[in-house]
Amino acid sequence: MLVFYYAPDTCALASHVALEEAGADYRLHLIAFETAEQRSASYLAVNPAGRVPALVTPNGVLTETPAILAYVAQAYPAARLAPLDDAFAFAQVQSFNCYICATLHVAHAHRMRGHRWADEAEAIAAMQRKVPDSVGACYAHIEQQLFVGPYVRGEDYTVCDPYLFTLAQWMEADGVDPARFPKVAAHREMMGRRKTVRDALRAEFAGLAAD
Amino acid sequence: MLVFYYAPDTCALASHVALEEAGADYRLHLIAFETAEQRSASYLAVNPAGRVPALVTPNGVLTETPAILAYVAQAYPAARLAPLDDAFAFAQVQSFNCYICATLHVAHAHRMRGHRWADEAEAIAAMQRKVPDSVGACYAHIEQQLFVGPYVRGEDYTVCDPYLFTLAQWMEADGVDPARFPKVAAHREMMGRRKTVRDALRAEFAGLAAD
Repeated sequence: MLVFYYAPDTCALASHVALEEAGADYRLHLIAFETAEQRSASYLAVNPAGRVPALVTPNGVLTETPAILAYVAQAYPAARLAPLDDAFAFAQVQSFNCYICATLHVAHAHRMRGHRWADEAEAIAAMQRKVPDSVGACYAHIEQQLFVGPYVRGEDYTVCDPYLFTLAQWMEADGVDPARFPKVAAHREMMGRRKTVRDALRAEFAGLAAD
Repeated sequence: MLVFYYAPDTCALASHVALEEAGADYRLHLIAFETAEQRSASYLAVNPAGRVPALVTPNGVLTETPAILAYVAQAYPAARLAPLDDAFAFAQVQSFNCYICATLHVAHAHRMRGHRWADEAEAIAAMQRKVPDSVGACYAHIEQQLFVGPYVRGEDYTVCDPYLFTLAQWMEADGVDPARFPKVAAHREMMGRRKTVRDALRAEFAGLAAD
């Protein structure tokens, strides 16, 4: 059985939804950010980087959302979560997920995690002020260039979809008006109604309530 | 034939070396940053994000280094650039490359590209001051947790190796002393002697001289 370490309202949701889509046999393990459990000795033994998500498999631990998503797609081929038989199409899935990970999520992270890249309070505040612009520019690129529709990569659902949905939930908090990006907004609404997404969200917040 | 768009002294080197390792039939196309050619109409038609690298294949254009590296590994299986028959091991390769892309390269980018995340000169200067710490912390994580040796993933060369080498070339400029990280430093020296790396570097700087 897999064990999936997560915290609610983090990018872990993307991999969590993918595990649901795959019909994987997995157990959730909540990491409580409010007590800094991600830096506890027991969690650092799982993921020395002290971040979520982490997926414990029979072969070892996997981190980094695009890698977990590609793993779930490859390990559960019957779920058809990526075009596994076409190296170019598979790479396009990876490319989109890398853009989310290294550009959109990084832009977003400057709102709450500016201390990673500067020490001074004024510099951290300056980063926060730019988040609506920098995150907005990412959604403009997605809307105009990357998004095919109705799913991210076209007619077929892929592991790109839960990843975009996860970040897009944070648009308003990032100061970005979803109305500027009708394709992304329609995708977010469609994904929010999907059973796997609702089940994953319910499980994440139930875990929080039980803690 | 593939066409590979690059600029010297950028992360494009990683994919360039992988193309050399694969024995791919490709042509180099230099994008001149000094004339902002990455934002020219002709290049934006190739890559609307206005960044390098971009790999033009018969099926379309690929961007994002981890995706290009995975594509080259999958499209040229005889070159054995990744463990293609093992979903977990392949995901570990993706995980390492995502870490380079979204954490190490992002930390590094705060030295020269701070304007992406803040507007004020003082905030950009504050980001630059933290680069030795933030980049150094990435190398500590790689040295202590991720690097297996002698290659990144162990006995077998993978597409992780040219990517780590590419970033590690910038350690001194990032204010990080390679002597603190003997495994990474030894890997950098070994990679620097590799024929594919020497050929790729020579071609990139020859392109620059001919421009």
